[in-house]
Amino acid sequence: MEYFEDVTVGDAATVGEYEVTAAEMVEFAERYDPQPIHTDEEAAADSPFGGLIASGWHTAAMTMRLLVDDYYQDRAALAATGVDELRFLEPVRSGDVLTAEVEVRETEPWDDDRGLVRSAVRTTAGDETVLTMEPLVLWERRDARSDETSS
Amino acid sequence: MEYFEDVTVGDAATVGEYEVTAAEMVEFAERYDPQPIHTDEEAAADSPFGGLIASGWHTAAMTMRLLVDDYYQDRAALAATGVDELRFLEPVRSGDVLTAEVEVRETEPWDDDRGLVRSAVRTTAGDETVLTMEPLVLWERRDARSDETSS
Repeated sequence: MEYFEDVTVGDAATVGEYEVTAAEMVEFAERYDPQPIHTDEEAAADSPFGGLIASGWHTAAMTMRLLVDDYYQDRAALAATGVDELRFLEPVRSGDVLTAEVEVRETEPWDDDRGLVRSAVRTTAGDETVLTMEPLVLWERRDARSDETSS
Repeated sequence: MEYFEDVTVGDAATVGEYEVTAAEMVEFAERYDPQPIHTDEEAAADSPFGGLIASGWHTAAMTMRLLVDDYYQDRAALAATGVDELRFLEPVRSGDVLTAEVEVRETEPWDDDRGLVRSAVRTTAGDETVLTMEPLVLWERRDARSDETSS
């Protein structure tokens, strides 16, 4: 398990893959972002995008799934306080296969038990960068866990 | 229909409501953010949160649904370019009823057909602010639509 003390600026990883389907794009959007470009094949075909595209929130959520499965699994990340500079750069379409790169940008102490880690995340579909963002996540300190174990 | 030219800094609206259920929190998190605090009632009860809380991405998605239903419906918003300063401020739990306030902060021309609008969004559950963010959204100009109609 990697704790806050183990995190170094520049640490990087690549995670994935997540295959995007039209059915899942429509299902997500009908629930959370019901705009024709995300839910209606015909209306989307007539739009400037020329076809269905994923809700940006869906792309962010799929990126989160990649990070939970392949990155946070062995790391003592506790909870996100937020996300800066989330950007939707290119449309995500059915058949796209997403991967994500994560790189640590800043670390700072938060309290006795936790430290804050700012990372840069870049989600790609083939050669295209479709989303970037900077999550702010609280990580457990190694000592905090020792205290818990001994109490 | 309200176009980019109609948008004024300070324009504000309140939208909602969205009732949060444990079943939906777990369903979202199992798919996009499978961490025990979001998916496992017992593990969450033993955590510092004392029970299941919604994924921050889920809270953002529910907020988007409120905005699509009650705010963007009559407005010529085309697509988001991104979101700044997304913050998860308080846990969202089963039974919470979410509402959101949106207020225009900045407007700037983008190209001949569109303008960019930065808004501040605040999502509340009862008296608590649970999420804040600043979406950046491209709106259609009134003239762009006239051009299309006449072409």
